[in-house]
Formats: sequence, C-alpha cells, structure tokens
Amino acid sequence: MQDLSRTETYSLGGVAAICFAILVNAWKSDGEPLFASLAISGIAFAFTYALIRWTGDVFIKRGYKGRDLSKKNAVEIPEAMGLVCALVYLLAVVNFLPFAFKHDIAEVTSAAIDKDRLLEALDIETGRFLHRFPLEKLASYGFAYGTLASVTILGILDDSFDMRWRHKFFIPAFAALPMLALYYVDFGVTHVVVPLPLREYLGDLVDLGGFYYLYMAAISIFCPNCINILAGVNGIEVGQSLVIALLIVLNDMLYILPTVNQPHPAAESHLFSVYLLLPFIGVSLALLKHNWFPAKVFVGDTYCYFAGMVFAVVGILGHFSKTLLLLFIPQIFNFIYSAPQLFAIVPCPRHRLPRFNARTGLLEPSVATFTEEKPLRPLVGEVLKLLDRVKLLRVQVSEEGRVTETTNFTILNLWLVWRGPLREDRLAIEILVMQTAVGLLGLLVRHKLALLLFTVDNRF
Amino acid sequence: MQDLSRTETYSLGGVAAICFAILVNAWKSDGEPLFASLAISGIAFAFTYALIRWTGDVFIKRGYKGRDLSKKNAVEIPEAMGLVCALVYLLAVVNFLPFAFKHDIAEVTSAAIDKDRLLEALDIETGRFLHRFPLEKLASYGFAYGTLASVTILGILDDSFDMRWRHKFFIPAFAALPMLALYYVDFGVTHVVVPLPLREYLGDLVDLGGFYYLYMAAISIFCPNCINILAGVNGIEVGQSLVIALLIVLNDMLYILPTVNQPHPAAESHLFSVYLLLPFIGVSLALLKHNWFPAKVFVGDTYCYFAGMVFAVVGILGHFSKTLLLLFIPQIFNFIYSAPQLFAIVPCPRHRLPRFNARTGLLEPSVATFTEEKPLRPLVGEVLKLLDRVKLLRVQVSEEGRVTETTNFTILNLWLVWRGPLREDRLAIEILVMQTAVGLLGLLVRHKLALLLFTVDNRF
Repeated sequence: MQDLSRTETYSLGGVAAICFAILVNAWKSDGEPLFASLAISGIAFAFTYALIRWTGDVFIKRGYKGRDLSKKNAVEIPEAMGLVCALVYLLAVVNFLPFAFKHDIAEVTSAAIDKDRLLEALDIETGRFLHRFPLEKLASYGFAYGTLASVTILGILDDSFDMRWRHKFFIPAFAALPMLALYYVDFGVTHVVVPLPLREYLGDLVDLGGFYYLYMAAISIFCPNCINILAGVNGIEVGQSLVIALLIVLNDMLYILPTVNQPHPAAESHLFSVYLLLPFIGVSLALLKHNWFPAKVFVGDTYCYFAGMVFAVVGILGHFSKTLLLLFIPQIFNFIYSAPQLFAIVPCPRHRLPRFNARTGLLEPSVATFTEEKPLRPLVGEVLKLLDRVKLLRVQVSEEGRVTETTNFTILNLWLVWRGPLREDRLAIEILVMQTAVGLLGLLVRHKLALLLFTVDNRF
Repeated sequence: MQDLSRTETYSLGGVAAICFAILVNAWKSDGEPLFASLAISGIAFAFTYALIRWTGDVFIKRGYKGRDLSKKNAVEIPEAMGLVCALVYLLAVVNFLPFAFKHDIAEVTSAAIDKDRLLEALDIETGRFLHRFPLEKLASYGFAYGTLASVTILGILDDSFDMRWRHKFFIPAFAALPMLALYYVDFGVTHVVVPLPLREYLGDLVDLGGFYYLYMAAISIFCPNCINILAGVNGIEVGQSLVIALLIVLNDMLYILPTVNQPHPAAESHLFSVYLLLPFIGVSLALLKHNWFPAKVFVGDTYCYFAGMVFAVVGILGHFSKTLLLLFIPQIFNFIYSAPQLFAIVPCPRHRLPRFNARTGLLEPSVATFTEEKPLRPLVGEVLKLLDRVKLLRVQVSEEGRVTETTNFTILNLWLVWRGPLREDRLAIEILVMQTAVGLLGLLVRHKLALLLFTVDNRF
C-alpha cells in the first residue's frame, strides 16, 4: 500500500474538513442543495485521490495492470482505476439525496404538523406524505443511480474478461435499460419539436414513437464508446470528460442562475444535471491528478463507460440530448474519421495510439503499413492520396505509386500530422484546448442561432 | 465453451418460447402484471441456465475457480457463478417495468385523450402526465434496482480481491444505502407499533428515529452475511435462498389473493415483493441445477450477498421486515451458534465445512483441535463439555479431562452430530426440509398469534 505524502495528507484532510463543515452547516441552516453538492463533491475528490493511491497495489496484485508504451522506462502501473471513481461517485450521489430533498421533507412534514394530524397505527402501512412529494425527481435519481451502477458492473466485466470489440460496443445499451424503462413508464414523451423550415411539411411536432427510444439507446451507446476510442495518451480520457462535464455545467448555469427569469420550466432538469455532474467532476479531477503525464495509473474501460453514461443520463433525463451532442463534436469527428479503420475498409493495427520516439522523447503519428502481399485496394489508395493532399492524413507512396503506409485514423494522429512531433502532455493539452473552444462555439451557436430554426430558444 | 445437450436445448427453448408467448399476450391483452412477471422469470431461468454453461470456461480462465473438497476427484470448477444470476436478474427486473406500469400508463393517457387535451410544444419540457402516476411505486423499483446493482458490484469486488472478513461483513451496508436514502426521503416513517403488554408504558406507537435506520442497516447486513455463513455443502446457499423466497411469496399470497378483502392496504407492498422475488426464483433454480450435488459450479459470495439483499429489499421496502426475520430462524440460530468461533472465543480453523470421508463417501462433522501448546481456556472447556452433554456439540476429552477436540460450531456440523454421517446431497435435503418446516411454523405463529401481541393482524 502506497501512502500519501505529508503534504498530500494535510491538503486532502483540509479540503475534506472544510467541505464537511459546509455540509453540516447546509444541513442545519436548510441551505441550498447546491452548496451541499459542492461540499460532497469536494469530499469525493479527497476520498478518490487517497483511495487510488491506497488501492493501486491491490489492483496490480489481482492482475489489473499495464505498461505505458509511451515512456522510456515502461514500468507496470495499475489499470482500471476508473472503478474507484465510479464507486466513490455512487456513494456521493446517494449521500446527496437527503440534502436534495430536505426542503421538500420539511415542507410536507410541517404541513402535517400544522393540521395537527396525529399519526395513527395504520399509517405505518402506507407512509405519511407520499402525495405531496416531488416523487418524479426521486424516481429520476433512483434510475440514474441504477443506470450508472449497471454501467459500472459491465465496465468491471469488460476490464476483467477480455471481451470482443463487437460485444463491448453494445454494453452501454444494456446498462441504459433502467433509464429507458424510466423514460417509458414515467415520462413517455416521444414528440420532437420540428425546426421552422420543415414545419410546412411535418407540422409543429412529430411523434417519433419507438424511434425515440432507439435514438436514446443510440446516445447511450455513443457517448461511452466515443470517449473510449479517443484514448491512448495520458490524461486524455479523463481530460476530455472533464471538459464536457464543465461545459454542460456552464450550459446548466444559463438556466438556473437567479438572473434568468425564474422559475424557468427547465430549471429543475438542469439542477438535476448539475447535482449529478459536480461529484463526477470531483472524482474525475482526483483521477486526472494520477493519470496525467507521466501517468501513475490507467483509467480502464470502466472509466470511459462510466463517464460517457453520466453524460447520457443527464442529457436524456435532463432533456437536452441535442445540446449534449454539440459538446461531443471532436468525439463525433474522431468517430467518423476512425470509421474506415473501425469497419476494416483500411486495415487496422492492434494499437493506434501515437508512436513514442524514444530518441527525442516526443510522440509521432503511428502508421499502418501495407505490404505487397497485403496491398490496399487501388480505389481506397486513391482516396487516401486525396486525403493526404487536403492534409487529413499523411501517406507514404512507393515508386510505382502504391500507398505503402498511412498515419492511423485518429484525431490524435491527425493532430500530430498537423502540429509535428509533440511531447505527450503538450498533445493532451492542445487537444483539450481545441475541445473547449469547439464546445464553447457549439453552445454559442445553440443559444444564438436556435431562433433561426425554432420559434423560441427554450432559455427565455 | 461448453454446449448445452440436445435435450437441454429443446427444453430451455420450449420454456422460453412458451413464456415469450405469454408475455406477448400479456402485453396485448392488458393482462395482470403477475403473468408477465411469471413469464419473464421463466425466460430468466432458461437464459441463466444456458449462460452458466456457456460462460463457465471463461470464468475458470480468468481465475474464478475452485476445487470441491468434498469429492474424491476434486477437479477445478467455475467459482462466483452467482454473478450470472445477478446480471440476468437485473435485466429481468428492468424488462418487467413496462408491464408493471402498463395499466397506469393506459389510464393516464386515455384520461388525457378524453379531455381532448392537445400536446403543446412546451409540454415537451415537463412530460405529460407526471401528476397522476403512481410514482412512489416507480421510485421503489428504481432504488431497489440501485441497491441490488450495488450489492452485485461489491460482490464482484469481494470475489475478485481477497477481502478481510471484517471488511466484508459491512459490504452490504454500503450497498443498502440507496434503499435507506429512499426510505429517508420518501417514506420516512420511523414509528413502530408497540405490542399490547408494553403499551401501558410506551403508548401505542414509538418513534425510533435514527435507530430505525440502524435497524434497517442491520437487516441489510444480516441477511446477506447469514446466508454466506450457512454454506459449504453443494446447493445449500441456493437451496436455503429458494426456501426463503418461496416462503415470502407464500406470505405475500395471503395479502394479494382475491379471496382476501381487497383492496387490502398492504397489497401493493406484497405485490412489489412478489414481482421482485419471482425472477429471483427463476435465476436461482437455474443456478441450483448446476450447483446441486455433485456441483458443476460454485456460487461465490456474489450470490450470497445478492440473495440476502433481495430479501432485505423486499422486507424493508415491503414493510414486513419482522416477518422476514421469522423466515431466517435457522440462519439466526446458525449465526448465534457460530458466534463463539466467529468472535474467536473458541479457536476457529480456516475452513469449517463438514469433513469428507473419502473411504465411506459420506460427510462427517469437522473438528477444531486443541493441542497442549495451545490449550483451551479451562472455563471455555467446561462450557463445551456441558454443550456436549445436551447434544449441542461433540467433544473429545483427554485422560486428564482436558477438551482436545470439538466439532465446529455450524448448523451443518451439528446436524451431522445428530444424524450421523450423511451423503452430501442427503445433508442438504434434510437441512432444507428442516428450514421449510421451521419457516412454515414461523408464518403460522406470525398470523395466528399476532393477535395476542397486537390489536390486529394486519392481514384482516
């Protein structure tokens, strides 16, 4: 068991103590659940940070370990540490519930006292205040928790058993079932608002029916998997998840700030989103500290599935799944860009992460090579040459004009084609900055240009 | 991958096909959710049965394996197969939800149509019929699912990492947090009805406050652990769980049968219990078939935790936790009887399962021996001799009157002391018959004698 340094112990202890004080105060003073959520997220950060350090050796002992191929001395480090994040996160969400509902409990309880209503023996059977309580919110929390616990189970299974890619791909859909079931029995709206230019043909609303569930299942499959394939550099899985989480919180703020006309009809959904994202940000920051260059731990598929599913849950149950997709533009690009290799149109090597040049210590684009025995189909070769000309690839061409080598089809390799060899942390930072810029632009477009497509921006 | 035999394929396929037909019919005809639950449980049985066979090799490959010490040829068989049960169970519960709420959905939807109420664009934000829906039921399902998914996660961790006994013991309490949080925010009744003889002193009702949560946490810790320690013979973990589940369903029937005065105030809770138990019975039967003597697979701690938590969930959220405890009498006896060894008053060997006599092929009581270097404390020795005299132990005494050996303190060893060497399956059957008899007696006492302690049996 690796211990925390003295500085770490004091800092984490300090953070935890302050957060705990805030929490006690929030409970006593009947304060905003937002403060309680922040405090619990701080405690979750400190706890995750320490737990990752403490349990690393146990993970290695049980075979959850890997070597970092982009380092000169590739020592074995713990793998699948996202599991720790997921467990602390689930614990944090459960412990937040009493704070989230304290106000409602106080209200119904005091109402009962006002009426001088005495509890009778038979009330024991049915509970005291079921009818006035915001149960739909409560059900959302329950099913969100169930979905995230499920994706954690499936993540562990994926990290434990070697699963085939085509099985893994659909894992998140199973985990999303509780959420879809909730949506079906409780909410049930499968209509979408039609953009203005199409209203002439389709009317104001279109009922997508069963397709809407397919759409939600697709989002649940997409979010986790596209985080999983934008990977291979220290800190990039956690980093991109943090950027997305922070951008969603920023968008949520537009609906819940006191400066907005309150009560805004969507404020509840966005509060729900914030309450689920803050502890996620807490545990992810702790993981990032250990996973950032040079990484001391790997995050595992568990983390990617878990992070993606957190976004799918808040997007779907918070009713802003289209906005959510705007924040996934780099991931969507990476997915489409990867498609030729994922679907084996272009041969795909086992690993596509950038190549570590031990001499310079920098990362270079990794390549797939095509021998004369296994040549590329001529048509595909011509397309690759075209992509090379518009700087979307870098290919090597033999004397007779045959493509012998191409950089692998991932956004990380493409970035290295554009920006030249980079140190690992530099690459991660540049990608994250690009992602943040694209996300901010996406939000701007969503709120400014929405009026061109719809009659109202739902924010006003 | 081991395949199913032709007979198995046809039987399982037949069961699944019939159940699927029932399910489709239940959906179309708006039938009772009970039929849907039965059909889904049948499908869960068939699926679990096949999945255990198919995945056995994968489990062995990944190190989840063990040797059966009570067999002449102790080959390695898969361990932790309860995980398959838990996963299929969770899937079954989610897929049951639309059936459970179909009637309510139809009602609120048709009400909306009656009023000729057109869906407007802004309704998309808030959903269509949140106010008339039995959301408290829905929340219960969500949190029950969350609790059971959590206990599955912790069971996997326990089976994957070697955890210390004193850590393991409290695992279920963590998993139970979602359920306790639900109870806190939603139901909140912490009063208990006082038995008649004590009313003079305490009044009709006593508010246990925080202690009630401790009581519920204790039940969540107790149920899983006491199934975990009544173990060590093929089929006994699954067998005892099945007996308990069937007895609870029997008790539930007393409240929901049409012959009872309907609507009974507790009918909803007991229906909830039945809906959660039927798929449990389905997956457990499939596991029992593989785990019964001679066992082809082991069930793992995952199963014991999972089974115990299913009982804790239905008992607590169904509001019959005291009745539940009546069905755990053999386990409670085993726990108390084991206590001297669990708490190290009497030295406890690593394994306490009955000893296999390879010559006779029968099981005999296993023993703990006390050498002259590590003798038993004299007082403890005297107590053991006393217990031997009332046939609650069998001890060996040396010439100078020192206790040198005692049978281990488990109900299985005690049964062997009473009934002599038995074959493994015979021992399991006798224990299960005894458990069923004790449980039926417990239910009889609960419903017949309740009137002596309380003013009403809540069944009438």
